Amino acid sequence: MAEKGITAPKGFVASATTAGIKASGNPDMALVVNQGPEFSAAAVFTRNRVFAAPVKVSRENVADGQIRAVLYNAGNANACNGLQGEKDARESVSHLAQNLGLEDSDIGVCSTGLIGELLPMDKLNAGIDQLTAEGALGDNGAAAAKAIMTTDTVDKETVVFADGWTVGGMGKGVGMMAPSLATMLVCLTTDASVTQEMAQIALANATAVTFDTLDIDGSTSTNDTVFLLASGASGITPTQDELNDAVYAACSDIAAKLQADAEGVTKRVAVTVVGTTNNEQAINAARTVARDNLFKCAMFGSDPNWGRVLAAVGMADADMEPEKISVFFNGQAVCLDSTGAPGAREVDLSGADIDVRIDLGTSGEGQATVRTTDLSFSYVEINSAYSS
Amino acid sequence: MAEKGITAPKGFVASATTAGIKASGNPDMALVVNQGPEFSAAAVFTRNRVFAAPVKVSRENVADGQIRAVLYNAGNANACNGLQGEKDARESVSHLAQNLGLEDSDIGVCSTGLIGELLPMDKLNAGIDQLTAEGALGDNGAAAAKAIMTTDTVDKETVVFADGWTVGGMGKGVGMMAPSLATMLVCLTTDASVTQEMAQIALANATAVTFDTLDIDGSTSTNDTVFLLASGASGITPTQDELNDAVYAACSDIAAKLQADAEGVTKRVAVTVVGTTNNEQAINAARTVARDNLFKCAMFGSDPNWGRVLAAVGMADADMEPEKISVFFNGQAVCLDSTGAPGAREVDLSGADIDVRIDLGTSGEGQATVRTTDLSFSYVEINSAYSS
Repeated sequence: MAEKGITAPKGFVASATTAGIKASGNPDMALVVNQGPEFSAAAVFTRNRVFAAPVKVSRENVADGQIRAVLYNAGNANACNGLQGEKDARESVSHLAQNLGLEDSDIGVCSTGLIGELLPMDKLNAGIDQLTAEGALGDNGAAAAKAIMTTDTVDKETVVFADGWTVGGMGKGVGMMAPSLATMLVCLTTDASVTQEMAQIALANATAVTFDTLDIDGSTSTNDTVFLLASGASGITPTQDELNDAVYAACSDIAAKLQADAEGVTKRVAVTVVGTTNNEQAINAARTVARDNLFKCAMFGSDPNWGRVLAAVGMADADMEPEKISVFFNGQAVCLDSTGAPGAREVDLSGADIDVRIDLGTSGEGQATVRTTDLSFSYVEINSAYSS
Repeated sequence: MAEKGITAPKGFVASATTAGIKASGNPDMALVVNQGPEFSAAAVFTRNRVFAAPVKVSRENVADGQIRAVLYNAGNANACNGLQGEKDARESVSHLAQNLGLEDSDIGVCSTGLIGELLPMDKLNAGIDQLTAEGALGDNGAAAAKAIMTTDTVDKETVVFADGWTVGGMGKGVGMMAPSLATMLVCLTTDASVTQEMAQIALANATAVTFDTLDIDGSTSTNDTVFLLASGASGITPTQDELNDAVYAACSDIAAKLQADAEGVTKRVAVTVVGTTNNEQAINAARTVARDNLFKCAMFGSDPNWGRVLAAVGMADADMEPEKISVFFNGQAVCLDSTGAPGAREVDLSGADIDVRIDLGTSGEGQATVRTTDLSFSYVEINSAYSS
């Protein structure tokens, strides 16, 4: 058994292949199959109202709480392709279901890559046949994790060992990646025996404080999809809390890997906000700072420019005492009661990790952390290259 | 009489001086005085809850609808300086009022420059004496416009000739400028005879569709201030519509100059949204696209990447038909019914001006335009340099 990834938990097999969708000629299709005995599935999708055809189809198919296999392709997002895009997504699902002897509604489908280009269905269908060929499916979590990469520079896998049961996972992308390439895709698997409801609670809780608080450039892709598939093969039913903890740990690990591999990143920045009314306000404020380009440029320059933090947070939808705001960089006070602290300009931010803590000065107990990156030359370079 | 600027309308004089606040040694203080016979004044301030001391003092002083003189300094924003900052702003106002034989409440004050550094009050007070010295005040609108510059590369003036009366103006900055330098400041003058109420209506209407829709980096400074001072010296009272038109023309001209001089700009981008319920939703949607870093990078790369427009607008707080969105670049359809249009990737965006039109597909009649710029290497360079 692989030590990590989606085939670490019992009951899961995977395959990967090169279908010729990516221009690079790298592997570009993957399949994960839940062999049971149970097939509970939970999912979280992009909140973008412009969502891709595979999101539409997956959302329909997971509505009954069961998914037995998820098909992945990279190199083409099948987004903004109108009715033909939806037809293509459904055709690939039907083809896979037929090959696996399943119903269409048992299949999830995820695409990532160029927006606005039709899927090359001949290649995709040939790829499906390869993914389901005799001997293809097996302990191939690592190969699947590689096949879903787009501009990711490393593949991203995780495993969390619990008491006799396991959660595995793979992920790719973050924010929206390089020219026209979209999407964060994550697949989590577990051999715990859990209901769809338990799985959905655990997934929603975990994504709210991991992927949802990872904000590289404020952009939300048309294709973002996180699946959690449960096989029950361990025969163990954890408590909801135990499941929550393990799924959170897996999501947290993948989120950290996504942040570390974000485009153009030279700094990993955690923005924590306290001293506001509730957690929702705290996350609004942290997100406002994390998305502020002037703040992000200052982080790139290792510049302890707390004035930009105040200017950004002052526009946030959160309760604050505008004259009682404090800011700490790497634990050192740079601003107290909305005024510069002694030595503020000498704080050393030259390391790759920067911790920013903002106290909005009210007695409220809201708290949240958003993880982001700096805004570097390389971010601009990656994202300004011509798309075709 | 100067052909343009704040001393073009009758009844206004100005002065400028070098007080040594800017490290560059360039002129850094300016004064505009309304000699009457009337002193109606309107103002619009930053909506940032973290606002600078001069904003607090100006807001108080304009509350009675009259301002006779506005003091400007560049090089130091007097923001985030706590009680001492407020004390310093009040001291400078009192000093100027005394020199001019006015009440403190007749004075407006605007600062721009570094955040979190105390004003050098000895230099500032000496500067006030120079600005009010015998012979200093005169037809010096152009000198004043130069003195309020921070990282602006050109001074920005305007004049609008109406039927026997005139509107003049100067402005600086846009968004938040280079390292720790804050603020858009605009001063408009007119010799029309108008009430404070007329002036406020004209100013609010004009700023809503000019400065408020100029969105370079989504950042709102702690110091943004727009004054409109009316001397009545022409003896002519325009209608509200006539005043609105002239003030709009002046604001529009200065806004265009601010956009053209925005930091790191290589493209001037106008994002227009139609086909949503109302103008407020249209501006939300246009702003969401204008602030999207992936979209802005694509503009820098002259890349007709309409997928990013759809991905960005799909997250906007505006009514839309997600499958009926159309996008036009420079008048050419690149996306129809949320699907790529033929020839979309060949649209030429190599020019300095790019027009983006987005139809959200509903029958609503909302419409708005937001002006922004691209996200370039040079934006990152300017904003990542160390602040001290």
